[in-house]
Amino acid sequence: MSNSDVLSEHISRQRETWLEEVNEWLRIPSVSTDPGRRDEMLAAAEWLVKKLDAAGCQETAVWPTEGHPVVFGAYKNAEDAPTILVYGHYDVQPEDPVEGWESPPFEPTVRDGRLFARGAVDDKGQLYVHVKALETWLATRGSCPVNILYLIEGEEEVGSPNVGKVVQEKIEKLACDAVVISDTTMFAPGLPSLCYGLRGMAYCQIDVSGPKGDLHSGSFGGAVVNPGEVLARLLASCRNAETGAVAIPGFYDDVVPLTPEERRDWQGLPFDEDAYKNDLGVAALSFDSDYSPLERLWGRPTFEVNGLLSGFTGTGSKTVLPATAMAKVSMRLVPNQDADKIMDALEAHLIECAPAGVSLEVTRMQGAPAWLAPRDHPVLLAAGRALERGFSAAPVYIREGGSIPLVSLLDELLGVPAVLMGLGLPDENAHAPNENLSLENFYGGVASAVYFHEELAKL
Amino acid sequence: MSNSDVLSEHISRQRETWLEEVNEWLRIPSVSTDPGRRDEMLAAAEWLVKKLDAAGCQETAVWPTEGHPVVFGAYKNAEDAPTILVYGHYDVQPEDPVEGWESPPFEPTVRDGRLFARGAVDDKGQLYVHVKALETWLATRGSCPVNILYLIEGEEEVGSPNVGKVVQEKIEKLACDAVVISDTTMFAPGLPSLCYGLRGMAYCQIDVSGPKGDLHSGSFGGAVVNPGEVLARLLASCRNAETGAVAIPGFYDDVVPLTPEERRDWQGLPFDEDAYKNDLGVAALSFDSDYSPLERLWGRPTFEVNGLLSGFTGTGSKTVLPATAMAKVSMRLVPNQDADKIMDALEAHLIECAPAGVSLEVTRMQGAPAWLAPRDHPVLLAAGRALERGFSAAPVYIREGGSIPLVSLLDELLGVPAVLMGLGLPDENAHAPNENLSLENFYGGVASAVYFHEELAKL
Repeated sequence: MSNSDVLSEHISRQRETWLEEVNEWLRIPSVSTDPGRRDEMLAAAEWLVKKLDAAGCQETAVWPTEGHPVVFGAYKNAEDAPTILVYGHYDVQPEDPVEGWESPPFEPTVRDGRLFARGAVDDKGQLYVHVKALETWLATRGSCPVNILYLIEGEEEVGSPNVGKVVQEKIEKLACDAVVISDTTMFAPGLPSLCYGLRGMAYCQIDVSGPKGDLHSGSFGGAVVNPGEVLARLLASCRNAETGAVAIPGFYDDVVPLTPEERRDWQGLPFDEDAYKNDLGVAALSFDSDYSPLERLWGRPTFEVNGLLSGFTGTGSKTVLPATAMAKVSMRLVPNQDADKIMDALEAHLIECAPAGVSLEVTRMQGAPAWLAPRDHPVLLAAGRALERGFSAAPVYIREGGSIPLVSLLDELLGVPAVLMGLGLPDENAHAPNENLSLENFYGGVASAVYFHEELAKL
Repeated sequence: MSNSDVLSEHISRQRETWLEEVNEWLRIPSVSTDPGRRDEMLAAAEWLVKKLDAAGCQETAVWPTEGHPVVFGAYKNAEDAPTILVYGHYDVQPEDPVEGWESPPFEPTVRDGRLFARGAVDDKGQLYVHVKALETWLATRGSCPVNILYLIEGEEEVGSPNVGKVVQEKIEKLACDAVVISDTTMFAPGLPSLCYGLRGMAYCQIDVSGPKGDLHSGSFGGAVVNPGEVLARLLASCRNAETGAVAIPGFYDDVVPLTPEERRDWQGLPFDEDAYKNDLGVAALSFDSDYSPLERLWGRPTFEVNGLLSGFTGTGSKTVLPATAMAKVSMRLVPNQDADKIMDALEAHLIECAPAGVSLEVTRMQGAPAWLAPRDHPVLLAAGRALERGFSAAPVYIREGGSIPLVSLLDELLGVPAVLMGLGLPDENAHAPNENLSLENFYGGVASAVYFHEELAKL
């Protein structure tokens, strides 16, 4: 048997075993944003350590942080060969709204070749591919052609506030030639994709406070400034409804324009706007001057309302003039926007617009810059060849609208190229009910990771 | 002893007994808007029937409706004397936000001469004054100088959808010379007040729907119209922030301007804007052209956000592009605005403003016109003399910003004057946590009601 045949045979043979393993992990509700689930976070980290040991790591550790711990693993037997660092996260998004799930979020269920559970694609299922790739080498050949480090954090979904410090402290242990991450998506099923750009993020909570308590809207309505209405006005003021552009002064100051080459390449991607709208169940998309949907998703910054809460929200009617109103707001950033500078601009704009009679509080919750890599780096080209072997199709080079705060940080601290080998699909509901992962992409992902090790070793 | 002395001595002697009775009633959580509390609604109605029997009514009944039942009571022994109809409601507002209460909403507690409980002032405590007034006459004199009908409904807090039909069906039983209602407030402590105007109301829920499920704000932000932001924009579009006026086209078309006499009289009332702001804990009030606070509260229509809900509202951050967003909105109306016409105008305006990519649903929940009475009617003047005797102070003639949907309807169906003898105080938190009733106003209210019977019989 050829080398490839031996490797892929092992992958085929292990399908059921690996699915059971992933299911075990997905049953642990490791929601990092929920202070009540610290024990589950630790359980999810310790579960991973055991699997890294079993796959063949010579060294594993749970590194404590001020928040949730970081899992470390290392396979270091490939003397004189390159070292890759696999980054991922074992924390998951909150499961609410729970009523939106067809099967319970923490009871993994396979339907139509897809594995449904919170964390299936973001990121437990995707990152586990790289654990199984090491296992595949050692089980079939007794050694892996590259050294592999694993750096798996527990706070990606809350903006990675602590892993950066860990990376700085352990920088010598983390020396590597490339970073590999599977936490993004393929452009389409059967179309393997390498992502060379991510948006950054600035996330905050806006609290508007008026009277010291809720008031009767009849007895006080007309004299008292309504915090719910003020919040609405503030949010509406952040976009020019005519052009679709964000209207926060200074918001676009540092934006690097898209290159003509990128715009041309993206136009060539198989994006079907009607199918996209149909999948989402919307009659029209948003707009932003003359930018296409992909340009708006990958290359333009956004302003999004993530949540609203004020006054009476139950069944029926209650005539209350609410004392407070709250919004969660996120802004996706592009090169070279700076999260702090953007938050300063938002806060200044809101203060400018807030009327007398209410007070305003802006709580900054997450901030990370965008990331952009050179598309023709040898490591990216090696990853492209590996994907082509793993999925029997030529890869496309794309960007993503989402954010992985640590990618920029690793770029800065380690100074090596990052390969974003996304195995998710656009309709896999990361951050929403019915999150899922294509099992074919999981197994094809293990194969691609294995081939990537081989391609890298050849460089 | 004089007649007045005998009556007031009875009131003094019964203070503790009556407080215990009111407490018993307030412990029943008769929240009409909550479908899970139908049993408690019925229990509250039946409790009242027993007390009407005990006070001396010859006839009592619980009249079923399609919603919560109406309690009826009648004392009819005053031959050739006038008949008054006491209207009130035994339903109360929802208790949320529960965490805002210093003592539990359905465990009545006296602090500093005030009785704290949901329903204390709105309206169980206030209406019970009129039950005890009948008792006072019969216990001290063996007869009451007027006939009294009681019409106490269970759906005032949800817009009185069914009591009107009951009134029409029982119109012969309800024939009277005047309607008496205690469900409003005194202008200030120690300043008895007769209310000759109420605002009407139009209440609705606005639902904005976008994509068929919640989306990842990174993967989809920039391409998809955000329902939370659209809702904010729609709400903001309903007011001109420069003038403070409601910006819904046609909103003011039917508004009857305030008379110069009213504006002059209101200017003479002891309204301390600084103290008012201080009590509410706000640095500034809202504005509406050159209208004073009292004019805005009593004589101008409003647009109020009563509630907002969209996306993620928990602790921490979740980067979701929400599928839906909801607002509860109420508009207080003045003569001669029509609730249906105003709702039509709002809906047309929202449809006009809503962008492509979302759908909009407006659910009408309450609607009632404003009410305005002649200030110099003999019955109102008799009520003024009664209040002066009961509280030892000359009354003022005021309007109220709130709504009592049935007042307009009774005006239309019965064609008799209505006396709004308010015993609440402006800081008694109707519709908010820590609702309370001044016990002095409760006992002074019983005395005033007793004297009103006497004054009416003299007309």
